[in-house]
Amino acid sequence: MTRPFIPLHLQPESDIPLYAQLRDQMRALVHSGELQPGDRIPASRELAVHLRIHRTTVATAYAELESEGLIQGFVGRGTYISEPATPREFTPPPREQGGALRWEALFADERAGDGLSRLMPEVPEGTIAFISARPSEEFFPVEDVRACANAVLKREAREILQLGASDGYGPLKQVLLELLRAEGIAVKERELLITDGCQQSLDLLAKAFLRPGDAVLVENPAYPGALSILSAARVRCLPAAVETNRSRQTYAGLDMKAVEAVLEQNRVKMILVTPDFQNPTGATLPVSERQKLLELAMRHKVPIIEDHIYARLRLRGNPVSSLKAMDRHGIVIQIDSFSKVAFPGLRVGWCVGPERVIERLRLLKQSSDLHTDQLAQATLAEFVKRGMLEKHMKRMIRVYSRRLDVFEKSMERHLPGGVEWTRPDGGMSVWITLPPGLDAGELLIHAREHGVLFVPGRYFYFEHPQTNTLRLGFAGLEERDIVRGLVTLGQVIETEMRKKQRGGARREAVEQPVVTSRVALI
Amino acid sequence: MTRPFIPLHLQPESDIPLYAQLRDQMRALVHSGELQPGDRIPASRELAVHLRIHRTTVATAYAELESEGLIQGFVGRGTYISEPATPREFTPPPREQGGALRWEALFADERAGDGLSRLMPEVPEGTIAFISARPSEEFFPVEDVRACANAVLKREAREILQLGASDGYGPLKQVLLELLRAEGIAVKERELLITDGCQQSLDLLAKAFLRPGDAVLVENPAYPGALSILSAARVRCLPAAVETNRSRQTYAGLDMKAVEAVLEQNRVKMILVTPDFQNPTGATLPVSERQKLLELAMRHKVPIIEDHIYARLRLRGNPVSSLKAMDRHGIVIQIDSFSKVAFPGLRVGWCVGPERVIERLRLLKQSSDLHTDQLAQATLAEFVKRGMLEKHMKRMIRVYSRRLDVFEKSMERHLPGGVEWTRPDGGMSVWITLPPGLDAGELLIHAREHGVLFVPGRYFYFEHPQTNTLRLGFAGLEERDIVRGLVTLGQVIETEMRKKQRGGARREAVEQPVVTSRVALI
Repeated sequence: MTRPFIPLHLQPESDIPLYAQLRDQMRALVHSGELQPGDRIPASRELAVHLRIHRTTVATAYAELESEGLIQGFVGRGTYISEPATPREFTPPPREQGGALRWEALFADERAGDGLSRLMPEVPEGTIAFISARPSEEFFPVEDVRACANAVLKREAREILQLGASDGYGPLKQVLLELLRAEGIAVKERELLITDGCQQSLDLLAKAFLRPGDAVLVENPAYPGALSILSAARVRCLPAAVETNRSRQTYAGLDMKAVEAVLEQNRVKMILVTPDFQNPTGATLPVSERQKLLELAMRHKVPIIEDHIYARLRLRGNPVSSLKAMDRHGIVIQIDSFSKVAFPGLRVGWCVGPERVIERLRLLKQSSDLHTDQLAQATLAEFVKRGMLEKHMKRMIRVYSRRLDVFEKSMERHLPGGVEWTRPDGGMSVWITLPPGLDAGELLIHAREHGVLFVPGRYFYFEHPQTNTLRLGFAGLEERDIVRGLVTLGQVIETEMRKKQRGGARREAVEQPVVTSRVALI
Repeated sequence: MTRPFIPLHLQPESDIPLYAQLRDQMRALVHSGELQPGDRIPASRELAVHLRIHRTTVATAYAELESEGLIQGFVGRGTYISEPATPREFTPPPREQGGALRWEALFADERAGDGLSRLMPEVPEGTIAFISARPSEEFFPVEDVRACANAVLKREAREILQLGASDGYGPLKQVLLELLRAEGIAVKERELLITDGCQQSLDLLAKAFLRPGDAVLVENPAYPGALSILSAARVRCLPAAVETNRSRQTYAGLDMKAVEAVLEQNRVKMILVTPDFQNPTGATLPVSERQKLLELAMRHKVPIIEDHIYARLRLRGNPVSSLKAMDRHGIVIQIDSFSKVAFPGLRVGWCVGPERVIERLRLLKQSSDLHTDQLAQATLAEFVKRGMLEKHMKRMIRVYSRRLDVFEKSMERHLPGGVEWTRPDGGMSVWITLPPGLDAGELLIHAREHGVLFVPGRYFYFEHPQTNTLRLGFAGLEERDIVRGLVTLGQVIETEMRKKQRGGARREAVEQPVVTSRVALI
C-alpha cells in the first residue's frame, strides 16, 4: 500500500465524543476501501500528536476498532488493518506469493470480541480501578487452602492425580449435594455436573441446546462473557430490559412485561437470567417476580438457565429463594461456582438440572476437556468440609458490607445531582446512570487521566446501549480508595456536565471542522 | 405402548456374532417402528434367559445400541427406546400431556457417543484389563507433587487463587518455552497457549478452524476423543490409513500415498496426525515420511495439527524430530500435555503455533472457560523446574520398557500363529490383527468371561472398520498380570479360531434359525 495519508476530520465541539468520531471515520475508511487489509496505521501516540488530541482518545478508538476486528496490533510491529472475516461458506486456503499460510483466512468465524480487556490493557500504579468483579485477594485464607491441598494430597493423591470422572470428583459432588440441600435444592448425584466454572457451564449449555438462528431471551444489560458465548453460537439474543429506574418499575430488575412479550412473540429456546445481584446492574428479582418468571417459562415450555454465582454474596436484607429451589417442574438449570466468594484461580463450578440434561452436558464436557482438574476439586471439597468456606464467606461479607456502606455514603456526598445509581443488597457492583447526553466512554477518557477507571455500560448491552451508564465495582477496593475514587469521579462528572452545557451553547456559533489532518501512513 | 412382544430370530451358527445379530435386529425394529420411543425393553439378564444366550452378549448389543443413541438406560428404571435425535432445523419445544419439559427434544444435536465407556462400565475385581492408556498411578511421586503444591501455595498463593490470564500462568509458560527449546522448538510466549489438555486443544482448534461440511484428513484408525470432537463439529473426516502390515509398507504408520491422494482430490481444511506411538496402533512415522508430509501440507497449504502427547514415552531406539521442530513454514500446530508421562488428573496441556493462531485460540479459550486452573499449572511448573518431571519420566520409561519387553515375549509365546501385532518403540499400546474372519467384539465377550479385557479395534475406526483388530495397552499392568492375561487371551483366541473352522464346516448343514423368541415388553 503506497497511499501516504489518512484523511481525518475531527470536530471537538461536536456532541459526539472525539474518540467516537475517530473510530467512526476510520471504520468508514476501511469500509470504503481507502484503508486496505495489511495497511499499517500510525501509532496512537503519533496520531494524537498530529490531531492535537489526547493519546488516550486515540487509544480508546483503536481499542474499539480492534474489538470489532477491523484493526489488529502486534507487539513491536505496529497496528494494521485486519483481513476481513472469513465468509461462512468454505473458502479454499488462499495461496500467497510469499508461500506462507494466511491463517486468518482459515479461521472458521469472526474474531470473538474482547474489547473490554483491550480497552484497559494495563492499569498504571496508583489508579483507583472500580472495574473489578473479582474477590479481594488480600483476604484469601492462604494457609487454610494450603492445609486443604496438603491434606488431600496426603490422603488421596493417586486418585486425584489419575484420570477422573467427567461428571466430577466424588467427594466434591457429595459436599455440593449437601450444600444444595441446605439451600432448598434436593437433587441426586446424577443431577449435578462439575464444570470448570460458570463460563464453561454456559458454553456446554449453548453446545447442548443452541443452533445458529435459535432465539434466547437475555437480560439487557448482561454479563459480557455470556454474550460472547451466545454470539459465537450465532443465536438471536432477544433483550428483556433490566429496569434500574425505580420511577418506571417498583423493583430494580428484569422487566417481566418485556419477558412475557418476548415469549409470546417468539419461539424462544432458552431464558438466561441472573436473579441475584445481577452483573452489571446489581439488581435482585423479588420473589413474586421469580414466581411469575417460572409460570411464564412453564406456560411457554422454555427452560431457564439461572446464573447463581452472586447469590451467596448477600450483604444485607433477607435471602430470596433461588429459581431452582422454587422450581416444581424441573424447568430450571442452575449454574454456580465459588469464584465470587472464594478463589476464581481454582477453575471449578457446577450445574444442577434434570438428569437427562446433566447426562447430555456430561458427554459434552467429556469431549470438551475430559473432566475438571481434580486437585482443585479435592482442595475445594476439603475447604468446604472443614467449615473454612463458611468462615471465609462470613468474613468477606463483613468486609464487602462495610465497603458498600462507605461506597453509598460517598456517592451521596460526592456525585453531582442528576446522577442515579442502583442500591444492590449484595454482589460486587453498583450501576450508575449519568444525566442524559453524557457518554460514559468519553467520561472514562477523562477519569483515566485523573487516575480513576470504571467500565462503561455499553459493554454490557447487546442492544439499545445506554451510553450514559457505567458499572462501578465496590467490592475490590479499600475504603479510603473508594472515597478518594468517588471524589475524583464526582469532579470529573461535574466538569463534563458543565462542558456539555457550555458546548450546547457554543455549538451554534462554531460550524467549521476544527481539526483536519492527513496523517502519514507508515 | 401396548405391544407385548419383540420378534427376535438369532442364528448361533451364523458367521455373524450373536451380539451383532441381536444389535442389528433391534435396530431394524426401531427403524421399522415396531419399537417406539419410550418403549421399555427387557433387562439384559431377562432377555438372555429368554434367548438362551449369555448375558454379556445381550449387554454388548445393548451397549452398542446405547452408544448409537437408539436406547437409553436409567439406573433403577430400566432401558428404553430413545427419542429420535432433534432435526437440525429449529423445532418448537414440544408440549406434552404431563406438562413436563421433554428435554431431549430441546437438545441441539445428536448424542455424542461414548460407546466405549458404556461397553465396559465396570471392571470386576481380578480382571486383567489391557484397556488403559493412562499412566500407572502406583508410581506417582506423591510426595514430590505435595512438596510442589505446598511450595507454590507458600510463595504465590494469592496470584494462583486469583483470576488469571487466559493464555496461561506465566511461570508455567516460561518452563514450557525452555522445554520446547530443548526439543528444537524455539518459540515466543505469544506462540504458546496453555489449555486443559490435548482434548481441549483439539476442541479449540475445531472451534477456530472448522465449519460443518469442512474436510479434515484423519488417521484411520485414530483416537476416539478426536473423532468425537470432529463428529460434533459435523466435518467430513477423510481417512488416510495407518498401515500396520509391514508386508504392505516398509514402515508401520500413516500411508503417505493415501495422504497425497486425499489432498489432491479434496479441499482439505486441516490434517490431524500423531506421528509418535500413535494411539491406537503404536506406529511412529519415520523422519523421511515426516518430511514428505510437511511438503505435501505445504504444497496444498493445509495446516497440520501434530498430537505430540505420546512422544516423550520413547522406550527404545532414537528419537525422531517432531513435525513442529522440522517445520520451516509455520504450518504445524503442536498439541501436547504431560498426561501420559505424569498426571492426567491435573488437567493441563498446551498448544504451540503461529502467533495469530494462538491469539485466536486464546480468545476461544477465554470464552470457553476463562483460563486453566492455576493451582495445577503452578504445581506442574514447580515439578518441572525442580527436575522432578525428568526423574519421574526416567523411572516410568524404565518401568514401561520392562513391561513392553515382557509383553512382546509373552505374545510370541502365547498368541497362536496367524495373530499379528505392531512393534512400537514407545507409547502405551500394541495393535493386534487377528486372522481374517475373527471378530474382536465377539472375542471380547469370551475374553471377558475369562477375566481379560481389551478394546476392539473398531472403536478407533471412523471408516472401513477392521473388525479383526484390537488394542492392547501394555503400560498399565504389572509384569505377572501381563503374562497371565496373554496366556488367557491366547487360549481364547485359539478356541475362537477352532470354532470358526468347525462353524465354517457345519454351516452348510444347518440353515434354519435356531433361536426364535418373542420377548415380553415390560
